Amino acid sequence: MSLTLDQARTMIAATRAKGREMGLKPLSVVVLDAGGHVLAFEREDGASPGRFGIAQGKAYGAVMLGMSGSAQMARAEQQAYFMAAVNGVYGGQVVPVPGGILLRDAAGAVIGAMGVTGDTSDNDAEAGKAGAEAAGIAADI
Amino acid sequence: MSLTLDQARTMIAATRAKGREMGLKPLSVVVLDAGGHVLAFEREDGASPGRFGIAQGKAYGAVMLGMSGSAQMARAEQQAYFMAAVNGVYGGQVVPVPGGILLRDAAGAVIGAMGVTGDTSDNDAEAGKAGAEAAGIAADI
Amino acid sequence: MSLTLDQARTMIAATRAKGREMGLKPLSVVVLDAGGHVLAFEREDGASPGRFGIAQGKAYGAVMLGMSGSAQMARAEQQAYFMAAVNGVYGGQVVPVPGGILLRDAAGAVIGAMGVTGDTSDNDAEAGKAGAEAAGIAADI
Amino acid sequence: MSLTLDQARTMIAATRAKGREMGLKPLSVVVLDAGGHVLAFEREDGASPGRFGIAQGKAYGAVMLGMSGSAQMARAEQQAYFMAAVNGVYGGQVVPVPGGILLRDAAGAVIGAMGVTGDTSDNDAEAGKAGAEAAGIAADI
Repeated sequence: MSLTLDQARTMIAATRAKGREMGLKPLSVVVLDAGGHVLAFEREDGASPGRFGIAQGKAYGAVMLGMSGSAQMARAEQQAYFMAAVNGVYGGQVVPVPGGILLRDAAGAVIGAMGVTGDTSDNDAEAGKAGAEAAGIAADI
Repeated sequence: MSLTLDQARTMIAATRAKGREMGLKPLSVVVLDAGGHVLAFEREDGASPGRFGIAQGKAYGAVMLGMSGSAQMARAEQQAYFMAAVNGVYGGQVVPVPGGILLRDAAGAVIGAMGVTGDTSDNDAEAGKAGAEAAGIAADI
Repeated sequence: MSLTLDQARTMIAATRAKGREMGLKPLSVVVLDAGGHVLAFEREDGASPGRFGIAQGKAYGAVMLGMSGSAQMARAEQQAYFMAAVNGVYGGQVVPVPGGILLRDAAGAVIGAMGVTGDTSDNDAEAGKAGAEAAGIAADI
Repeated sequence: MSLTLDQARTMIAATRAKGREMGLKPLSVVVLDAGGHVLAFEREDGASPGRFGIAQGKAYGAVMLGMSGSAQMARAEQQAYFMAAVNGVYGGQVVPVPGGILLRDAAGAVIGAMGVTGDTSDNDAEAGKAGAEAAGIAADI
């Protein structure tokens, strides 16, 4: 199964709705496909201009390593030089903190990732998880 | 005046609708702000995975140089080494063909750019122009 | 509101004047617009040749993240790998220490940033804050 | 002799004044030292945001190669692949067209370069030459 643009749009809309419900700062949300390539992105008014790169970095590391943002953060806390090296390998595009969310199909295969940024990393991840669930897609935060 | 996310979403939806009306291949559409930073992006199902970069490259050159894709193409045809050099300056992010569309406010100031890719460059530009007009925004193709 | 070149020149002149008043080492001062692009820069005689990059890096991170140099430094001290990752995302252009100063309009919206370098980070920030105030622009250091 | 910041400021002010006198579009002007490092820069209101890079690229190639923009353009017209290769060597920072102006001391030694951009390349060069002359500095366009 591949993610469709409609699924990506549903996830972004639901993540943004959850952010408003939680009273978060303006969010930026990206959805990448199973190859780590951008399907859809939205940056809410008032977010800082560089948010695309942060959102993409959270999601890109998740897809490329097959590890959620939380799992990447745990590794970074244990072994910072490893995540720094991984970042070199992936051209500096990995941001190893919560808000990078692995998306899985019913069989558990990774079909892409979301990247959410704008509030605290934990709030970003919570909003994104709600967004994935709204599209009926299992998510590892 | 700054572009809002709602305006960007309107332009993307209208560009995609125009593409379907014209019978084009799957389109990918990005909207950048006046600083060249991504506001919103959508890639239609069936498009090749690298379309974000092409869309962004069309729009980024337009914002940074203040020249539409058609104007960039004319310069590239006259002086290929100049546009190659400009691309080096901007980190390889400039794609100097139609489909890079400058967006202007009522006073004529550049407020951002769209990048459209997927069909021929001229068709990409025509769909994008319709998209901008649907949001009431003047566009140089 | 967009920063004008005259405002940028006023901020640079006043920052330099404050530096002389404080007896600081030669300063280098950049002003970026709301998209992180250079509006104006001056490097005082006697400063080391690489100061443009440091000044730009202080200001660029501030604009792109919407965080002052002090706020970036606090995050770097808590979570060094996060700021290292952000730097990868932004092409190595982020210097997360004081002297990166967010500039805001009367409504609180970010309209650009200054980057000041040459003395201690705290002195750089103090001179820059005086420079912003001389132009009537609110500054987060 | 090294260029001073005051000389750089004089050259920029006089280049801008010449541009207004000639009725040119908004100009962006950089002055680099003999090592190719930025001394001062100004971008006039209404110029596109990416002008720093173009100005720097014109001036950087001039200093690094010891060739004015016109001389670089002649070489590019004869041997485009050579200038493309040079650009690779210098990290994509060379824009080989008029507006890159070598600055010389009384003995003929290169002491830096100006980069001027915003109007046609020939007009950029003419304004910059006037700017250098206003500071009493010999210039190769």
